[in-house]
Amino acid sequence: MRIILVGFGVVGQNLAKLLLSRADDIYVRYGMKPRLVATVDSKGVAINQSGLDLQRLLEVKRLYGTVAAYHDDGKYLGEQDTDALEDSKRSRYRVDDIIREIDAEVLVEATPTNLNDGEPGLSNITNAIKHGRNVVTVNKGPLALAMPSLLELAEYNGVMLRFSGTVGGGTPILEFAKHCLKGDRILSFKGILNGTTNYILSMMECGLTFDEALADAKSKGYAEADPRLDIDGFDAAAKLVIMANWIMGMKVTMKDVIFKGIKDVSLEDILEAKEHGKVIKLIASCDESRRLRVEPMSIDKNEPLCVNGTLNAVTFTSEHSGELTVIGKGAGGMETASAILRDLIEVREAMSKGLNRN
Amino acid sequence: MRIILVGFGVVGQNLAKLLLSRADDIYVRYGMKPRLVATVDSKGVAINQSGLDLQRLLEVKRLYGTVAAYHDDGKYLGEQDTDALEDSKRSRYRVDDIIREIDAEVLVEATPTNLNDGEPGLSNITNAIKHGRNVVTVNKGPLALAMPSLLELAEYNGVMLRFSGTVGGGTPILEFAKHCLKGDRILSFKGILNGTTNYILSMMECGLTFDEALADAKSKGYAEADPRLDIDGFDAAAKLVIMANWIMGMKVTMKDVIFKGIKDVSLEDILEAKEHGKVIKLIASCDESRRLRVEPMSIDKNEPLCVNGTLNAVTFTSEHSGELTVIGKGAGGMETASAILRDLIEVREAMSKGLNRN
Repeated sequence: MRIILVGFGVVGQNLAKLLLSRADDIYVRYGMKPRLVATVDSKGVAINQSGLDLQRLLEVKRLYGTVAAYHDDGKYLGEQDTDALEDSKRSRYRVDDIIREIDAEVLVEATPTNLNDGEPGLSNITNAIKHGRNVVTVNKGPLALAMPSLLELAEYNGVMLRFSGTVGGGTPILEFAKHCLKGDRILSFKGILNGTTNYILSMMECGLTFDEALADAKSKGYAEADPRLDIDGFDAAAKLVIMANWIMGMKVTMKDVIFKGIKDVSLEDILEAKEHGKVIKLIASCDESRRLRVEPMSIDKNEPLCVNGTLNAVTFTSEHSGELTVIGKGAGGMETASAILRDLIEVREAMSKGLNRN
Repeated sequence: MRIILVGFGVVGQNLAKLLLSRADDIYVRYGMKPRLVATVDSKGVAINQSGLDLQRLLEVKRLYGTVAAYHDDGKYLGEQDTDALEDSKRSRYRVDDIIREIDAEVLVEATPTNLNDGEPGLSNITNAIKHGRNVVTVNKGPLALAMPSLLELAEYNGVMLRFSGTVGGGTPILEFAKHCLKGDRILSFKGILNGTTNYILSMMECGLTFDEALADAKSKGYAEADPRLDIDGFDAAAKLVIMANWIMGMKVTMKDVIFKGIKDVSLEDILEAKEHGKVIKLIASCDESRRLRVEPMSIDKNEPLCVNGTLNAVTFTSEHSGELTVIGKGAGGMETASAILRDLIEVREAMSKGLNRN
């Protein structure tokens, strides 16, 4: 299986590490030999149609900060000079070319999430699908903004679009809902889908103010320098959109979610809830009427959903099996890379059956 | 899909209700028309090769306490008189005959769990497999005592053996571990697998003594008149055996589990643990060295595994995705029936692909 990997940050590099360390085992268990034939980062590209040397690729990235410095028997598309790097149009053009021209079965899209216009992920995914490539993405932006049409485009082109790592990091929340409850029906669900806000709320529970908790989250690397996507509920809303489309068969995007972040949650609110055995959590929910909401809610301390720290949790209400909860780490480079591998195996299995399903 | 159902207690009757209420939907979603062609209870049998009328079957059971009173266009194997019912050998013989002679693709085994010799479930399952029938069982006995050889027998005969409902009731714990973590590896797991003991320990946490908590569990229907299978850890050990074989690929039976029940847990132990933010739970575990144990252990109150009441929970430690926890109701007639339906759909899907896999 030949793979074009676009985006070589923490998740991309962990994918390379995972493919490197597990190559033999993956072949034995799944009959699959995944090869990265092209890897693109923000500064350039490394290409080898027989498969990049992953050890060297990781080394080059570590030493030079870009895969563009990768040399492999001369099969190297050239270092880009600084001027060229500044020329974003040219850079854009090159990624398009690579997706179109390099022979590969799958595009793995791992560029950073952008919830404004979904780029560059949206163009990358669209191009790949149009050129008959299956797509595995960990980028929430394109899905949050255009999931119904992307799924349709993939179906029309007979390829698969998979995105396990977009919700719950390595925790197989989407798989659980889709594959584990055959014959049953999910009526509604609610979840803690954002680790950063859950960490902040957990620390406020211990007596810190919002600002202190945020500062603590930043110092531990749980919050971005600009944490608004988390704090204001955008990240949770994006994940909710993905779950609603995939699990409930809805056709929705970000604009269909009513959402509110945690900025207005005061320490007093939290301590008052605590007195009644409750805690305030940022809950993303799809109710029985299929209304989509992200908002701070007080829930019972003893509910399985009530997890602390950076954990994610989702409770599904099923028609026959009652409430079912899945809990796990919601982020992490290796965790998310393992979700990509899961998707690649699924793509491989569908290919070997001669069917591409969405 | 023609089904022989042996055992028509709470779970069996809920399966009939489920097939009745969901018939159209199951056909639309899975292309499957499940028909009960024979249903056996402890007092007799109802047979119709075109499919029993489920409404009538449930009504007859309710009115007469046995399916033997079912009449359906004369296709009825006769009421058994009281003498005949006493003749257990004859009754035994008849079940064997039915499994052998009635045309069906699947046996659903729902007789009560017997952890001494696994009967009558063990004979029913063995007979069905030998006669080329797929088997779906919710009976833990045969698996706890002979799972490795039963799986081998099924493989040798080219049929499927499925048992989703034996662990976690309707909660798809086995499916989660088997299907949701492709590409990853489960290194160990630990779980609360018995709702009765978890309820008793939860009540002791609230200040009741063991005897008071047990009496309360009995009054609420959470504990059997003879609760030893739960209290002494047999039930949890049986489920642990099933998980070890299925998830970890081990070849083990009850004799490979070291287990200890909750009888010696005192209120003092629990209150002392409580002072340190801990709770005592009956934990079934498979560690990294693949040692299987069931024993009361104190765990942190904030662990996702720490569920109260009759809930079940399992935490899997995976190589790449960290700790993943699944929580749900561990029992219940309809919940367990929904697990049977899940297995039937899987059998159907394998049949339609022309492959029977274990």
